[in-house]
Amino acid sequence: MNDSEAAPQASPEEGDVGFVEYQDFVSHEPFHFESGGTIPELTLRYETYGHLNAAKDNAILICHALSGNHHCAGVHSIDERKSGWWNFAVGPGKPFDTSRYFVICSNSLGGCSGSSGPYSINPETGERYRLDFPKLTVHDMVKAQSLLLDSLGVDRLHAVVGGSMGGMQTLQWAIDFPHRVGRYIAMACCARHNAQAIAFNDTGRQAIMRDPIWDNGNYDPDQPPGHGLAVARMMAHITYLSDAGMEAKFGRKRRTEDAGKEHFDVEFEVESYLRYQGQSFVGRFDANTYLYLTKALDRFDLHGPVSLDDTLSTVTAPGLVVGFTSDWLYPPQGNREVAEALLRLGKDATYAELSMDFGHDSFLVRSPELYDLIRTFLDR
Amino acid sequence: MNDSEAAPQASPEEGDVGFVEYQDFVSHEPFHFESGGTIPELTLRYETYGHLNAAKDNAILICHALSGNHHCAGVHSIDERKSGWWNFAVGPGKPFDTSRYFVICSNSLGGCSGSSGPYSINPETGERYRLDFPKLTVHDMVKAQSLLLDSLGVDRLHAVVGGSMGGMQTLQWAIDFPHRVGRYIAMACCARHNAQAIAFNDTGRQAIMRDPIWDNGNYDPDQPPGHGLAVARMMAHITYLSDAGMEAKFGRKRRTEDAGKEHFDVEFEVESYLRYQGQSFVGRFDANTYLYLTKALDRFDLHGPVSLDDTLSTVTAPGLVVGFTSDWLYPPQGNREVAEALLRLGKDATYAELSMDFGHDSFLVRSPELYDLIRTFLDR
Repeated sequence: MNDSEAAPQASPEEGDVGFVEYQDFVSHEPFHFESGGTIPELTLRYETYGHLNAAKDNAILICHALSGNHHCAGVHSIDERKSGWWNFAVGPGKPFDTSRYFVICSNSLGGCSGSSGPYSINPETGERYRLDFPKLTVHDMVKAQSLLLDSLGVDRLHAVVGGSMGGMQTLQWAIDFPHRVGRYIAMACCARHNAQAIAFNDTGRQAIMRDPIWDNGNYDPDQPPGHGLAVARMMAHITYLSDAGMEAKFGRKRRTEDAGKEHFDVEFEVESYLRYQGQSFVGRFDANTYLYLTKALDRFDLHGPVSLDDTLSTVTAPGLVVGFTSDWLYPPQGNREVAEALLRLGKDATYAELSMDFGHDSFLVRSPELYDLIRTFLDR
Repeated sequence: MNDSEAAPQASPEEGDVGFVEYQDFVSHEPFHFESGGTIPELTLRYETYGHLNAAKDNAILICHALSGNHHCAGVHSIDERKSGWWNFAVGPGKPFDTSRYFVICSNSLGGCSGSSGPYSINPETGERYRLDFPKLTVHDMVKAQSLLLDSLGVDRLHAVVGGSMGGMQTLQWAIDFPHRVGRYIAMACCARHNAQAIAFNDTGRQAIMRDPIWDNGNYDPDQPPGHGLAVARMMAHITYLSDAGMEAKFGRKRRTEDAGKEHFDVEFEVESYLRYQGQSFVGRFDANTYLYLTKALDRFDLHGPVSLDDTLSTVTAPGLVVGFTSDWLYPPQGNREVAEALLRLGKDATYAELSMDFGHDSFLVRSPELYDLIRTFLDR
């Protein structure tokens, strides 16, 4: 592997990808879902960073988590307040070094940032799909991404990578398309949800569906069931953090004095933070989409239909699985379970467990330790 | 201590207290809250089991948790499906042996089961207090209970005991009324909420307050903000259990097959269980009360106003503090912190950490290990 000569130390200074524009991949063929459902055509919104080389062997696919989208690096305009969700990791000289790699990130099938999903327009009716969108699985998401890669002329990925829902997609890529995956990095993921993860997701769904504005999915997109969606997000956001991390960041810091008459306005800093997270989510995410994506996660089960070992048996690429000690939503043991099964099957797999205080979201945080792991693994 | 002769083995066979009736303690004096607020009179609904002896030294006060009430043992009628919430532990021959002890359990001040609180009628207006009820603290709850004890002729308790919110009350008893507490048992509690516990509570409050039916607290009690309250309860209920416990009980067991069109009805057993818990809570609990009690818990802080050691310095009674390994809402270290401070101060304190899979609710589960601890400690 010649790439291994290019040690992390030799990277040029880190830079940002700068201004980026999304593109839409549209397939006018019907797209068939694992559930038997069909949509008449498929759109995936995506961004790319860096350039596909002549050999077309330097492409890396990044898969986003539940609330993420295709915009993982750079900014769309000078007014954009925040860069893409993984801007720390994607750019010239960064772990996903866009001076070497052609990085692709697409809004997942079923997502609400421009790809086909409950929020997108059904071309046959001119209306949003809403609850008529077919039942969705992680397998469907990966199949849709494979069509995008076809359109980009990428037969085989140098790597596929993702955390959380993106980690599930990453594992599914290695299982479904072994000949197209050069290597894979699955972070903060699991072979399947345990009862607690399903319970949190269903509570979030109930928060949305019990909001009268939801109206069985038929709400006006300009007047979404924001109360339910905000509550779902507040709860989910707690599960993405860790007890220790929240304590270090917020503790019992107060915004207002504890005096006088009872009130339920913000009293503690952590309340202010969470309420803001809930409210801002309403402005950028669709409630029906939240229902569909969380169901896809709840159903994801590498132990089925036969066994975990059977499901993983098709994997050929080397894999890196990364668990985080403070992740109590997809705890380390769920990540380890996948790596152990791969090793039991004689696959080329590495497991790393990183001690960070950021909970499930640890993979989104700038981390020299994680980034060194990624660089080294990509260079193998 | 003559009582120590009566070893647990000598207890008669365990029995139930049978039919019980609640009573109301009413004080026609104004009750003053720590916050400066006042109510014109105080009512506490309570039940007692067993008999107060001639020396009036065999009384035990049991303090309930957030969603509990005064009905901790026996049944009110032959039609009552479930016995009181701690029926396992309270009765003849049981750990709180009603053939020896006079057991008292009152609905907390601020509660919605008959005691003065947001749900009760303000005698001055003839209307429910709703959000006009004064700001409430754990200190207020304990002060109200002390008036009930006065009325019962109990100067000094053989013991005070409770878990969770009841554990906080128990510690507050030992702090506020050292001369009235013979011993205390605080289970699954803490010196104060960490940021995560506040975050969960605030999310539950937001679920209620964002339900349009809540109407700033002015809902019709027959048409409560049930959607918000159910969601708050579903989320809270997850925090009362443990990952391992839920996995053992529910895992990924399905109620319906995973086929065909997308739907959001119950698919997994755990969803059915949680939705039922949410819905049944709406029938037995008041939304405004949920707001007040969770705020009282969030504000409870034995580290203030000076320090934990300073707050605990008034304690004189021997104490037993019990943490549960699987409790991630009030984790063992929070319980241990209290016990360690007591020991540092030279107090007579014992800490026990029990390994049970039932999470925060472990103290509510029939447990020979816990019950042996309790019997031994009560007999000291």
